[in-house]
Amino acid sequence: MLTDQVVAAIKTMVGPEHVLTREEDRWCYAYDATDLARLPDLVVFPGSAEEIAQIVAWANLYGFPVVPRGAGTGRAGGAVAVAGGVVLVLTRLNRILEIDVQDFVAVVEPGVVTGHLKKAAEAAGLFYPPDPGSADYCTIGGNVAAGAGGAMAVQYGVTRDYVLGLQVVLPTGQVIDTGTRTMKGVVGYDLTHLLLGSEGTLGVITRIVLRLVPLPAAKETLAAGFAGLSPAARAVGAILRAGLSPAALEFMDRATLDCMREALPVAAPADTAAVLLMAVHGHPADVRQRALKMMELCRDYGANAVLHAADPGDAARLWQARRSISPATFKVRPDKIGEDVAVPLGAIPRLVSGVEEISRRLGLPILCFGHAGDGNIHVNIMYDRRLPAEREAAPRAVEELFRLVRDLAGTLSGEHGVGVLKAPYVGMELSEAAIDLQRRLKRTFDPNNIMNPGKMFPGGG
Amino acid sequence: MLTDQVVAAIKTMVGPEHVLTREEDRWCYAYDATDLARLPDLVVFPGSAEEIAQIVAWANLYGFPVVPRGAGTGRAGGAVAVAGGVVLVLTRLNRILEIDVQDFVAVVEPGVVTGHLKKAAEAAGLFYPPDPGSADYCTIGGNVAAGAGGAMAVQYGVTRDYVLGLQVVLPTGQVIDTGTRTMKGVVGYDLTHLLLGSEGTLGVITRIVLRLVPLPAAKETLAAGFAGLSPAARAVGAILRAGLSPAALEFMDRATLDCMREALPVAAPADTAAVLLMAVHGHPADVRQRALKMMELCRDYGANAVLHAADPGDAARLWQARRSISPATFKVRPDKIGEDVAVPLGAIPRLVSGVEEISRRLGLPILCFGHAGDGNIHVNIMYDRRLPAEREAAPRAVEELFRLVRDLAGTLSGEHGVGVLKAPYVGMELSEAAIDLQRRLKRTFDPNNIMNPGKMFPGGG
Repeated sequence: MLTDQVVAAIKTMVGPEHVLTREEDRWCYAYDATDLARLPDLVVFPGSAEEIAQIVAWANLYGFPVVPRGAGTGRAGGAVAVAGGVVLVLTRLNRILEIDVQDFVAVVEPGVVTGHLKKAAEAAGLFYPPDPGSADYCTIGGNVAAGAGGAMAVQYGVTRDYVLGLQVVLPTGQVIDTGTRTMKGVVGYDLTHLLLGSEGTLGVITRIVLRLVPLPAAKETLAAGFAGLSPAARAVGAILRAGLSPAALEFMDRATLDCMREALPVAAPADTAAVLLMAVHGHPADVRQRALKMMELCRDYGANAVLHAADPGDAARLWQARRSISPATFKVRPDKIGEDVAVPLGAIPRLVSGVEEISRRLGLPILCFGHAGDGNIHVNIMYDRRLPAEREAAPRAVEELFRLVRDLAGTLSGEHGVGVLKAPYVGMELSEAAIDLQRRLKRTFDPNNIMNPGKMFPGGG
Repeated sequence: MLTDQVVAAIKTMVGPEHVLTREEDRWCYAYDATDLARLPDLVVFPGSAEEIAQIVAWANLYGFPVVPRGAGTGRAGGAVAVAGGVVLVLTRLNRILEIDVQDFVAVVEPGVVTGHLKKAAEAAGLFYPPDPGSADYCTIGGNVAAGAGGAMAVQYGVTRDYVLGLQVVLPTGQVIDTGTRTMKGVVGYDLTHLLLGSEGTLGVITRIVLRLVPLPAAKETLAAGFAGLSPAARAVGAILRAGLSPAALEFMDRATLDCMREALPVAAPADTAAVLLMAVHGHPADVRQRALKMMELCRDYGANAVLHAADPGDAARLWQARRSISPATFKVRPDKIGEDVAVPLGAIPRLVSGVEEISRRLGLPILCFGHAGDGNIHVNIMYDRRLPAEREAAPRAVEELFRLVRDLAGTLSGEHGVGVLKAPYVGMELSEAAIDLQRRLKRTFDPNNIMNPGKMFPGGG
């Protein structure tokens, strides 16, 4: 697919030291955070939008796939080069170009680690709220391309809500700017939001203009344990309806709790069937009052233990425990299908009880945890691929989960994206006419289907 | 353009009582809130998405324009049938289908008056924050189609931030659903946001799923007068950077103030050159403290009068005065070009002083007021079309304003849209490649260019 001429040309464009050709080197860029892998034909580390534009223009001419990639932390296979071709690793584009405290704006390259951006904003007295679980090592370009979420979305929204504008290399090799540097803007079609969450299928994002907000003056962290799932779910609804505006409102079920007891800074009572972990951000005068009111509501709804983190260290340990969940799940089974469905807020109890029912019926442990405050629950179907019965039951559990979610007017993915893993199921959510329109949009951007082919659409795009 | 056969068919589709054919009746739907007018060939009041799909399918087959229209309050000519054809008045689709307090969701038809939706949400204990100045009579479908903003955008964001999903009749007559009923969702391209602000050029919106939020428990209203523009602008920056999170932070200059002195519930000191009007929403414990801190900052930055509305009645009178500005401007001159540029937050002082300079140089009164808290300033170029010098100077002032705004990295429209009036200037903001891509997107949706043709693009689409 890649002729020697193409490889030589790309080496000239970016410098030979920024190209990997040896198979053992290329394997390092064959994976993401799923268990999918596909060896790319070439791995390239471009140094500028201009270099990317040149490579993409050649790809468009010669018809080879281009797969943009940040840190490879995606959970849907979006960065795996399923059709081969060139993997464009964007980690050299890792400059924070501007943090402007007058404009409340950051301008960054896509390879900036999200956590670095958050720290740089804080150093300037500002706040970049989105916080995907992998914030310490994922890159902002991937967050934008995947439409990443995170725990703080309850109060602050998701990546989508912070992107003001983009610079993008189109699949034809043209470079355009979309959006604005202003807080409002309605000139032309909203290409910025169309590119957001397009998973590298419509172009390569080479620069991002982000909105920042003031740092919250005060923060509190709370946890509450419940003897049943249903009182916990009802407490979530009560907290939201009371207008207490938690920054984060996380949930974990008993099976999840059992995996992470060691990581918890305090012992959870043995009869705990569900835990809520909550953050409150805001102005000093009201944060404490809202936190107290949330604790009171948790008790009213039957919490058997309520914890108010005494200091930032305690709070950090609780959030660290939350971040440790994903690796800890493998204690239950060696293999996992991790879904991130979202349902309307009122449907969370029905989702959780429906998942329990699927787990019982198919005999697979399923762990639920995640963002109860916005209805985005991580459903982890655990199995052992060496056991034929579990290997067969796992995909059945996925299908039953998705059917349940659709019955509840939910979506198959709240923040991970479609990628490869969810592509076969997209027809459960989108109509044929909607998928057809999206295919035509893809062709309008990318007539030769070179940008990250094989993703997002049923049948592989 | 419309044959008798087409008119007869449409009458059969919607019922003859829902079609206007007489010229004097059709003239009523030739206008919007600009001074543009064009007589439509037919005015139709469809009663359902199915009827709209039938009409659009015929339009696609026979090649006549379809122009969706709500209350006609647009300020860019978006609802004027510049190429003739059928005006689809959506006011019969005025049902609030659902307000779900568990899901924090409203489902509405496009013809619902925005203010009615706000009241219905409040009656259910919830809040729909977007508040375009015309909220009492504009319709939500137009808000979505135009990407409407409003004063509360500083804290709460704009219409765009509240639309979760849409039902849309595509220009081919197909009906699709976009988006979700969930707070997060990343399956497929973000068609919802692409349709938002597309000004009726990509389809007819027939149903809207909106996110609601808890009602703020407490509100305060403040006003501050300054002897100069520059201290007022610096106070805006200080308030935002202090993290005081005003819900609204409105600005008006001396010329604006002079128009509306009678409407003000209190007398402004004679030497007042700029007024800030502020709302603070939130939890009772901190709203008062933030309001006091904002008053203190205004005084620190040189305010010569600071007013704290004593009760909701006083507050309502201040906001009523704010809404009276737009009609009051005609005291200065009989004609107006009303622009709604937005600049990065740090550039507001340079925008306002640049506008003063344009006003002096061209000898035209220009009134600035609007949403200082998000950099979206309404710049009203006042003139008398009977005076040749002013008639010629007015469009020159527009061009100079747009050049100034682009020099400040701003946008030509923060919330009114492009429509007809700004279409000739779009090339000042978007590159040729970006405009070309947008034209190709338009053709992908609408191969026969039947949906609201002549809008949004330079040269009339």
